Amino acid sequence: MKFNLARRTACEFGGTLFLVAAVVGSGIMGEQLAGGNVAIALLANALATGAALVALIFSLAPISGAHLNPAVTLAAATSGDFAWRDVPWYVSAQVAGGLAGTLLAHVMFGLRWYSFSVHARPGWALALSEFVATFGLIAVISLCSRAKSEAIPFAVAAYIVAAYWFTPSTSFANPAVTIARSLSNTFSGLRPADVPLFLAAQFAGATSAALLTRRARTGATVTVS
Amino acid sequence: MKFNLARRTACEFGGTLFLVAAVVGSGIMGEQLAGGNVAIALLANALATGAALVALIFSLAPISGAHLNPAVTLAAATSGDFAWRDVPWYVSAQVAGGLAGTLLAHVMFGLRWYSFSVHARPGWALALSEFVATFGLIAVISLCSRAKSEAIPFAVAAYIVAAYWFTPSTSFANPAVTIARSLSNTFSGLRPADVPLFLAAQFAGATSAALLTRRARTGATVTVS
Amino acid sequence: MKFNLARRTACEFGGTLFLVAAVVGSGIMGEQLAGGNVAIALLANALATGAALVALIFSLAPISGAHLNPAVTLAAATSGDFAWRDVPWYVSAQVAGGLAGTLLAHVMFGLRWYSFSVHARPGWALALSEFVATFGLIAVISLCSRAKSEAIPFAVAAYIVAAYWFTPSTSFANPAVTIARSLSNTFSGLRPADVPLFLAAQFAGATSAALLTRRARTGATVTVS
Amino acid sequence: MKFNLARRTACEFGGTLFLVAAVVGSGIMGEQLAGGNVAIALLANALATGAALVALIFSLAPISGAHLNPAVTLAAATSGDFAWRDVPWYVSAQVAGGLAGTLLAHVMFGLRWYSFSVHARPGWALALSEFVATFGLIAVISLCSRAKSEAIPFAVAAYIVAAYWFTPSTSFANPAVTIARSLSNTFSGLRPADVPLFLAAQFAGATSAALLTRRARTGATVTVS
Repeated sequence: MKFNLARRTACEFGGTLFLVAAVVGSGIMGEQLAGGNVAIALLANALATGAALVALIFSLAPISGAHLNPAVTLAAATSGDFAWRDVPWYVSAQVAGGLAGTLLAHVMFGLRWYSFSVHARPGWALALSEFVATFGLIAVISLCSRAKSEAIPFAVAAYIVAAYWFTPSTSFANPAVTIARSLSNTFSGLRPADVPLFLAAQFAGATSAALLTRRARTGATVTVS
Repeated sequence: MKFNLARRTACEFGGTLFLVAAVVGSGIMGEQLAGGNVAIALLANALATGAALVALIFSLAPISGAHLNPAVTLAAATSGDFAWRDVPWYVSAQVAGGLAGTLLAHVMFGLRWYSFSVHARPGWALALSEFVATFGLIAVISLCSRAKSEAIPFAVAAYIVAAYWFTPSTSFANPAVTIARSLSNTFSGLRPADVPLFLAAQFAGATSAALLTRRARTGATVTVS
Repeated sequence: MKFNLARRTACEFGGTLFLVAAVVGSGIMGEQLAGGNVAIALLANALATGAALVALIFSLAPISGAHLNPAVTLAAATSGDFAWRDVPWYVSAQVAGGLAGTLLAHVMFGLRWYSFSVHARPGWALALSEFVATFGLIAVISLCSRAKSEAIPFAVAAYIVAAYWFTPSTSFANPAVTIARSLSNTFSGLRPADVPLFLAAQFAGATSAALLTRRARTGATVTVS
Repeated sequence: MKFNLARRTACEFGGTLFLVAAVVGSGIMGEQLAGGNVAIALLANALATGAALVALIFSLAPISGAHLNPAVTLAAATSGDFAWRDVPWYVSAQVAGGLAGTLLAHVMFGLRWYSFSVHARPGWALALSEFVATFGLIAVISLCSRAKSEAIPFAVAAYIVAAYWFTPSTSFANPAVTIARSLSNTFSGLRPADVPLFLAAQFAGATSAALLTRRARTGATVTVS
C-alpha cells in the first residue's frame, strides 16, 4: 500500500459523498422531470448511479481501493484482504461521507438540509432482496479482484444497474448509503425505522458472499477433474 | 483448466440463477413501474439483462467459462473447445439454476413460487427469430473467443441488448432461460406449450453458428488472396 | 492480412446483414411498443444499433476489418490503408448484405419482404446532416486506427449513438445501410427518391475526413512548437 | 509532445465544435420528439453527450490531450501538466469551436444561426451546482491521469452522464460550452445574463480540484501508516 491512512480515509469520505449525492440528486431530478412515470425516473437514477460508480472507482481505486461501502470493507477484512485495524476509520468515513452527500444534494436542489424519509420499504421480502443484492455485489468484487481486477469498475457499476431493477428494494446494498438515504424524504429515501433490518440483511449477505467466494478462489489449487 | 468440475458446475448453477433472477425480476419491476408503456419496460429489462451479463461473465469466466447457457455449452463442445463428458453436468446445472432464479425473483417480489406463463409467443416467425438470435450469439462468442477473448463480456452483453430489440421474440437465445421463463406468468414469461419450438430453433441456430465459424477461424491458415 | 478475400467478403456480407437487421428490426419493435412517443422509439433504436456495432466490430474486425460500410472502405482506400482492387468486392458484399438484412427483419416481424419507404427526409439541411455525420464517423475511425485501434468498437458505437441524436437525419452515415433502409416502409426507412442526395453527402463527408485526418496523422513527425 | 501547436489547437477547435453540436443538437432532437416529457429528453441529451465524449476523447487525446474545456486546460496548467504559454491558444480554440458547434447544430436543424437563450438558470444553488460539477470533473481527470490514464474516456463520459442528472444545473462544467449554449434558445440553452456566475463557479471548482488532487497524488511518496 502506497498511501497513508489519512489520505485513504479522506478518499473514502469524498467518494461516498459524491456517490450519495449522485444517488439522491439524480432521484430528485428524475422524479421532478419524469411526469409521474416512475420507470423513467428509475432509469435515470440507475444510469446516474452506475455512471458515478465507473468514474469514482477508476479515480479512487488506486488510492483507497474505492470501497465506498462498509459491507465491502468488512468483506475485504473477512477475506484477509484488508487490515482489521483500518476498518473503523473506513466505515466512519463512509458513513460521514454519505451523510454529507445527502446534505449536498439537498442544498444544491434548494431543499432543507435533511428530512426524515417517510418512504416505507418494510418486510421480509425486502430483507431477502437486500441480502441477495449485497451477496451479489460482494461476490462480483471478490471474484473479479483476483482474476480480473481491471474489470471491477465496469463489473460493479453494471451489477448495481442491474440490481436496481431486479430487486424490489432497488438494491441499496450499502450500509452507509442506506443510513444517508434515510435522511432524505425524496425519491430514493427510506424510512429510518426500516434501516436496521436493511443493515442486518446487507451484512449477512456480504459475509456469506465473502466466505463462499473465498472457498471458490482457493479452489484454483485443487486437483482438476 | 484449473478448477474442478464440482466448483465449475456450482458456478454455472449460481450464475444462471442470478441471470434468470435479473431477467425475470427486472421484467416484473419494469412492468410494475412503466405505466403501460411496454417500450420503457423493455428498455429496463434489456438494460438490466445486459448489465447482469457484464458482471456475471467478468466474475465467472475465469472459473467456469461463464457459459450460463446450454446452447453455448453445446456449441463449445461441437467446436472442440469443451469436453463432451462435462456437458451433462453443465446443462443440468444451468437448467436447475434457471429454475431457482425464477423462484428467487418470485419470492423477492412477493409472488407465488412459480406460475405457468400464459404469454403466447407462437409461430414460425418467432422460431426464425430464435434461430437468428442464437446463431448471432454463438457466432459472437466463437469469433471473439479466438481473437478477442477479453472482449467477450462486453460483446455478449451488447449483442443481447441489441437482440432484445431487433427480434420479435425478444431473443431468449438460451434453453435454460427459456425453460425457466415458462414458469413465470410475468412480463418476461412464455407459454410452456411454445417451449419445444423455441428450444429446437435455439439448438439449430447454435449448431449452425458453431460449424460456420469454425470454418471461418481455421481460415487464418489459408493462402492470402 | 491473414484471411483470403472470399472469407473477408463473406464477413462483410454477414456483418452488414446483422447490422441492418438490428437497425430496421429495432426500429419496428421500438415503434410498435413506444405508444406514439418517438423519443422512446429512437432511444431503443440508437441503443440497439450501438450495441450491435460493439458486438459486430469485436467479432469481425480481426477477420475483415469490420468496415460494414462502403464509406469506410473507400476512406480506407483513400488513406492508403486498404487495397483499391478489393474495394468492389467489399462494397458489393455490404450492399447485398444490407438488402438481405432488411429482408430478414421484415420476415422475422411478419411483414412483406420489402416495401418502398414513403418516409421523406429531403432537403439540403439533411444533406449537410449526412455530410457531418459521415465526416465525424470517418474521422473517429481514422484517428483511432493509428493511436488507439483497440478502442474502435467502443468509439464507433458511441459515435453512432450520439449521431442518431445530434443530426436531424438520425445519421445514416453508411451508403449500404441507406440503400437497404429505402426498401423498408417502417420507422427507420427513407424514401428511395432521397437516396442519391444522401449517398453524395456521405461520400463527400467521408472523403473530406479521410484527407483531413491523413494530414493530422502525418503531423506526428513535424517539428514540435 | 509529438504534435505542433497549430495541429493541437485545430484538434481542440474541431473537438469542441463536435461536442457542442452534440450537446445542442441532441437537446433540440430530444425536445422535439419527447412529447413534453423532459426526463426522456434529458436521457437522450445525457446519453448523446456521454457517447460523443467517448468518441472524441479516444480520437483526439493522442494528439491534443482532448481537453475540449478551458477549465481542464487551466487545471492542467495549474497542476504543472500543461505549458502556460499554450493556454491562450487552447482556450481561444475551445471557445471558437463551441460557438461554431452551436451554429452547426442550428443550421442542421433548420434554425437561425444563433438565438439568445431566454432559459434562466439563476441563483446561488446553481452556482454551487456548477462548482460541484466542475470540481468533480477535474478531480476525476486529475486522479485518473496519473494512475489510470487509459480509463479517462470512460471515466469522463460516465462522470458527465451522472452529473447531468445529479446537479440541478445539468452540469455544464465547461466554460466554452457554457458560452456556446448561451447563443442557443433551445433545450440546452442558458440566458447570457447567467453566464458570468456559471463561469466563476466553474473556474473556482476547477482550481480547487486541481490543488486538492495534486496533494493527493504526491501522497504516494509519504510514509505508510
